[in-house]
Amino acid sequence: MSVTRPAGFVASGGAGGIKPEGKLDLALVATADGAAVPAAGVFTTNKAAAAPVQVSRRHLAASGQRAAAVLLTSGNANAATGPAGVAACEALCGEVARLLRPDEGIAAEAVLICQTGLIGFPFPLEVVRPRLPALVAGRGPGREQAELAARAIMTTDTVPKEVAVEGEGWTVGGMAKGAAMLSPRMATMLAVLTTDAVVEPAVLQAALRQAIEPTFNRLSVDGATSTNDTVLVLASGASGRRPSADALAAALTDACGRLARQMAQDAEGGTKVAVVRVEGALDDEEAHRAARKVAESQLVQCSLNGADPYWGRVVSELGAAQVAFELDRVRVAYGGVEVCRAGVAVPHDTEAVAAHLAGREVEITCDLGLGTGRAAVLTTDLSEGYLAENRRTS
Amino acid sequence: MSVTRPAGFVASGGAGGIKPEGKLDLALVATADGAAVPAAGVFTTNKAAAAPVQVSRRHLAASGQRAAAVLLTSGNANAATGPAGVAACEALCGEVARLLRPDEGIAAEAVLICQTGLIGFPFPLEVVRPRLPALVAGRGPGREQAELAARAIMTTDTVPKEVAVEGEGWTVGGMAKGAAMLSPRMATMLAVLTTDAVVEPAVLQAALRQAIEPTFNRLSVDGATSTNDTVLVLASGASGRRPSADALAAALTDACGRLARQMAQDAEGGTKVAVVRVEGALDDEEAHRAARKVAESQLVQCSLNGADPYWGRVVSELGAAQVAFELDRVRVAYGGVEVCRAGVAVPHDTEAVAAHLAGREVEITCDLGLGTGRAAVLTTDLSEGYLAENRRTS
Repeated sequence: MSVTRPAGFVASGGAGGIKPEGKLDLALVATADGAAVPAAGVFTTNKAAAAPVQVSRRHLAASGQRAAAVLLTSGNANAATGPAGVAACEALCGEVARLLRPDEGIAAEAVLICQTGLIGFPFPLEVVRPRLPALVAGRGPGREQAELAARAIMTTDTVPKEVAVEGEGWTVGGMAKGAAMLSPRMATMLAVLTTDAVVEPAVLQAALRQAIEPTFNRLSVDGATSTNDTVLVLASGASGRRPSADALAAALTDACGRLARQMAQDAEGGTKVAVVRVEGALDDEEAHRAARKVAESQLVQCSLNGADPYWGRVVSELGAAQVAFELDRVRVAYGGVEVCRAGVAVPHDTEAVAAHLAGREVEITCDLGLGTGRAAVLTTDLSEGYLAENRRTS
Repeated sequence: MSVTRPAGFVASGGAGGIKPEGKLDLALVATADGAAVPAAGVFTTNKAAAAPVQVSRRHLAASGQRAAAVLLTSGNANAATGPAGVAACEALCGEVARLLRPDEGIAAEAVLICQTGLIGFPFPLEVVRPRLPALVAGRGPGREQAELAARAIMTTDTVPKEVAVEGEGWTVGGMAKGAAMLSPRMATMLAVLTTDAVVEPAVLQAALRQAIEPTFNRLSVDGATSTNDTVLVLASGASGRRPSADALAAALTDACGRLARQMAQDAEGGTKVAVVRVEGALDDEEAHRAARKVAESQLVQCSLNGADPYWGRVVSELGAAQVAFELDRVRVAYGGVEVCRAGVAVPHDTEAVAAHLAGREVEITCDLGLGTGRAAVLTTDLSEGYLAENRRTS
């Protein structure tokens, strides 16, 4: 259940001196033989994209969508750090490339980089660089090394997030941290996926994009799109099996979905995981917009925290979502129990609703009654823990 | 400093039985002689508009933009209440019209209605109706009656909000409650303005729309557009003075701006009032979008609560605001002290920034360095008090 589960990959984790007191903050995922293999990536849409996002994008393009390794660091986002931040990323990638194949070497463009942490602080390149040899030397295919890597990318996460999905003779593995900018001190969601399937870069890129849409792109804790969000996948081909594009996309979607759920469950301060489903919208895109509006509402998130069945806030957010909407067609249900029909309150089993809302997993379903569009967005409650975590960075 | 400050208006406040324990929940603002005068209104853009919004819109149109009175109730939003909710509004308006001129009567369309409170609960018409005669009988031009009215529309507000602006021989008065849906149990921002200026309905409507844009429409506590937001203005003409359209718009803008600031200062649980200014955007509209994105950010609001000078979150929100943006041109300042230039940290007086952030009023200025567009949005911090207030409605 990790990035080394598929054949042909190694991982490593270590302390790079970015975080205080020798905490884990460096991770490596690489091909076992240091060869560049088909790779794909999806990056944040934030226009203040961090240096590692700029560099990884460039490397993927320059290498014809192939990569031999991903270096990940936590504790400093290397965002809003100007040209010096970009130069630090290039130096780190070059150093890892040299260390991976000391004899012949590989191109720096074959190394991708993900970083997460505080925005706006210079990256301590000279502190980190001397720790890279130990990181690279420590790589291996074992479960332990993979878990060390998954731990090294944690910031305010309380548990590492790993996944494995079995295909027919091939496998997808993965690890991730955080969700949106719900991780205040350290920002960012990062995920690295691996597979031993045989696949061309273009097919891999399409499958990754397809996998992200219903998973990571349907998760919102606080509506903040970070400067560093990155999802990468490397395909070693070591299984010798070539799945259909659909089978590969399905496995990646499964893996991303399970990582997204782990992120929601470990959201900062969160006490609930909620799925907001919107049905009956004009189209899927409008359903998504409406579901996101409800999911990101501070007031709805407050109600979730208090287990309060106040559906009026849900209806109000739907009305403000800038989608086709007719109040007298709206239905709302908590955990399958209808509380609003035709836009007004209906008698219902209040104890069943209270019991549902008291649980850790909550489902809010909204039927707009207008079309066949549907979407679901995963979110959490707004808690005192979130506030306490995010008041101060130091 | 109230709705009765301009000549020709009376007000009243009372207990209608909507809130428990005889609390104030009914208010009336009317012309002194019960005559319909030029009136204008701006209403929520929420498609789940409450019954009073639907009815006031219809009455204004039916009466050729004239009104004799505004009835306001608090404690129940009469939103998501279906046809029964609309019928209740019509009944209340008809009853007030009858009571205002028992002899000849006036048209129900000359009475407008504003309501605020919980969404989705049937409005208790039969409880309220018998209380209307006392409310109407109690009306008068005094300071006390006006303040009673301003108190009767309070929900989670802690202080009444009133304003008066002097023109040359004419006056604008006003009262308001709440801000956006920051008022959880009771929702909604409502404002009623009065003036004794002589003005035609069309000029009044244009002036009101102009006044709202840089004031109420630049205030956001939690990004929630309520189902009941309403701003109304009535012009008695009693001063006999006819100001220019510009002078009238300026006075209304001044009045709305001061009410908006009072709302921000009394925002639920809020410990800070913050102005987010964006300059150097491509145009004013993009500046507004960017300022709103920063102002409504949960993470930025958390930083405000903790007096944390973490400008990285500000830059990240600007980058995600879907406006033209180039990180290496961005400057950010707290209270005039520049902390970020060309998209990276700059040395600055950290004690001055800490002192500014420790205060009750905070100013964040962001220069995008791209054009001449500018806008300012007023907001508050996200506090434990907000959370505590909004976890449960009962």
